[in-house]
Amino acid sequence: MPVRLDRSRLLPALTNRDALDARVLDAHRRVLVGETRSPEMLGWRSMLAGGTVPELDAVLDVADEIRDRADVLLCVGIGGSYLGAEAVLQALTPTFARSGPEVLFAGHHLGAAYLDELLAYLDGKSVYVNVISKSGTTLEPALAFRHVRTWLANRFSDADRRIVATTDGARGTLHRLAADAGWRTFTIPDSVGGRFSVLTPVGLLPVAVAGVDARALVAAAAAEADALTTADASHPALLYAGDRFALHEAGTSVEILAVMDPRLRGLGAWWQQLFGESEGKEGKGLFPVVLQYTTDLHSVGQYVQEGRRLFCETFLRLADDDAGPTVAPIAGDPDDLNDLAGVPLGTVNARAWQGTADAHAEGGVPNWTITLQRLDADAVGHLLYWYEHAVAVGGTLLGVDPFNQPGVEAYKGKMYALLGR
Amino acid sequence: MPVRLDRSRLLPALTNRDALDARVLDAHRRVLVGETRSPEMLGWRSMLAGGTVPELDAVLDVADEIRDRADVLLCVGIGGSYLGAEAVLQALTPTFARSGPEVLFAGHHLGAAYLDELLAYLDGKSVYVNVISKSGTTLEPALAFRHVRTWLANRFSDADRRIVATTDGARGTLHRLAADAGWRTFTIPDSVGGRFSVLTPVGLLPVAVAGVDARALVAAAAAEADALTTADASHPALLYAGDRFALHEAGTSVEILAVMDPRLRGLGAWWQQLFGESEGKEGKGLFPVVLQYTTDLHSVGQYVQEGRRLFCETFLRLADDDAGPTVAPIAGDPDDLNDLAGVPLGTVNARAWQGTADAHAEGGVPNWTITLQRLDADAVGHLLYWYEHAVAVGGTLLGVDPFNQPGVEAYKGKMYALLGR
Repeated sequence: MPVRLDRSRLLPALTNRDALDARVLDAHRRVLVGETRSPEMLGWRSMLAGGTVPELDAVLDVADEIRDRADVLLCVGIGGSYLGAEAVLQALTPTFARSGPEVLFAGHHLGAAYLDELLAYLDGKSVYVNVISKSGTTLEPALAFRHVRTWLANRFSDADRRIVATTDGARGTLHRLAADAGWRTFTIPDSVGGRFSVLTPVGLLPVAVAGVDARALVAAAAAEADALTTADASHPALLYAGDRFALHEAGTSVEILAVMDPRLRGLGAWWQQLFGESEGKEGKGLFPVVLQYTTDLHSVGQYVQEGRRLFCETFLRLADDDAGPTVAPIAGDPDDLNDLAGVPLGTVNARAWQGTADAHAEGGVPNWTITLQRLDADAVGHLLYWYEHAVAVGGTLLGVDPFNQPGVEAYKGKMYALLGR
Repeated sequence: MPVRLDRSRLLPALTNRDALDARVLDAHRRVLVGETRSPEMLGWRSMLAGGTVPELDAVLDVADEIRDRADVLLCVGIGGSYLGAEAVLQALTPTFARSGPEVLFAGHHLGAAYLDELLAYLDGKSVYVNVISKSGTTLEPALAFRHVRTWLANRFSDADRRIVATTDGARGTLHRLAADAGWRTFTIPDSVGGRFSVLTPVGLLPVAVAGVDARALVAAAAAEADALTTADASHPALLYAGDRFALHEAGTSVEILAVMDPRLRGLGAWWQQLFGESEGKEGKGLFPVVLQYTTDLHSVGQYVQEGRRLFCETFLRLADDDAGPTVAPIAGDPDDLNDLAGVPLGTVNARAWQGTADAHAEGGVPNWTITLQRLDADAVGHLLYWYEHAVAVGGTLLGVDPFNQPGVEAYKGKMYALLGR
């Protein structure tokens, strides 16, 4: 399997594993047969049953058109409507000098300066817009889209062809807007919540435009879902769910996801929403925090090693020990690095992971390591489903509803009242 | 003052404020007179005493040359050697379509793919390199610099003129390398730790190259330092330090810094290192976490509102209620937003802040708001010193040494052993 779990630093040893496994398997069974809370929200699983997902062919057709005609695809969405796409893009497209259309985001915050600066940057470029919202009324993307739509109409005679709406299949403001204007649409299934939507058109259109092999991504997720259908308690995603639950019950407060490569940072942000929104309710849950190592070892590494003991930690790394430039010898060894001559940077990074995982375990931070055997659509597809299943099981173990997010309404209600809405 | 503190949502009211104020004022006095732990590390304060900092004129001269001659300034450094510069750049230069040289970073992680991709991107561009390291032996920047230096020498006949080393003034590997090759150098003072170095040449050269008014930044920090010299317990930085200490003693585990504009995100990352490394030791400290709102309200907002009660929170925002595009009316109001017609985006963001701060306080998250009256070098300079002083006082209150970072050595030692060093 392209996703491997190392539990050797998960100290102290969890007691009574048999009882824990039985609880995990029961929660797992409930996810499989739909006996969770909000059982109508298990579409992220059931949609993969045939090895593919709805509308994939049509998504790829539109992506091809956008790749042919656009310099920029501007995605307008917030939360689950952009985190999945950004995660896959960061993982699977180059950091510098990408080929194909640039994929940019808007409507994911209310910063006053961003939108006009962005539109100035887009001036003179061929732009398509993918507006992504179940209802069309979430304020951040709705305001941005009203602005962007006017800008687009002022610049392109075929503006309506350049807008693709990913939204509810039957109702809602954005659905109605799209029908009135004749925009092409893709459907966010009713049974798939925002944070589980990366493998629907929500995530698949932007990543396909950027050149990611969306078909391979979906096939890998479907294979992982299939494997979990017949899994026993030794499946890594179930071990991870059980370990986390035991640590939570023992008082651990925070889970750090430490990515060992900047390309994995977006997957961290996607994980943070998936776990934070699914579990963080009723006074429960591990608070999910994303760090990037070794960068953040020179920032909050000091705290993780020696501050308050709040943590468990997952290292997410690549099995790329042979990758990257090797250290070149220099005559005279002026910077004292010749002892590493011939060593690939990937090996140094692997030793940094290993040293950090050991040091943190000794410092009282039990930790797992998830290793992706390769960084490709297959491995990422497996990982996406792996985590989705783990959080469904984990939330069910906690006794919360992994598929709602009632707390998100609190700030919205007060903001709307202050705006006189 | 350009930095204002709102403590109205700091619930429950802190008891025995007089006793707390007395302790804060004693810690403050110790910072002023050098009675802290590691009193030799108070140069970040004393260097501002004359209203400027060492080498500023020379830094600005070199920055002018780089602005004239370079397409890209590549900064090689990690931790305090890049976080300060990145914070100021994100805050004070445009997000899209910057003018002047592009400032990029390397040596701040060990990701295997990054360096070669970056160098491919730099091919054909006029590149200067600023290598920033007190010793020159920190592995991440040392390895990257060895690679970059060779690349530069192969492309530019004046490569040695294109390298500027910011390092120790008298000793160390990088100091020796620079002396041997004749590179220009700037000094990291012995009395200034990495996380306090943004107002030395470490931070000032990169930001000046990007067009930031470094002189105004320094003058503002010096003015804030001066104001704190004669401050009483009502100075906001001292109130904040005392509030945090009281919350820490009462069991709060995590401080969230929630920035209300993406341009403030780098300041958040800089704060995270400053507070995490200064306070997170001997089993103490508030674990510093940075979020960006409203983006992350659609991610971990659910957890902050309804998960485990671990938090206090600082909102960092701009007084830019009038900024940004206004909502344009559309005939027929197809997206139900005409009730907001004429409202600037900055006002909507201000209401989002206010609603969130209220909702989180009601949800059991005591919170402060820091408002920058403008986003310019003056306000940012004030804020940088404000936080530096607050953490020096805060660490002293906790009884830890705010100026060391012994825990950072743990992973390094194990990594070196695994590499056979």
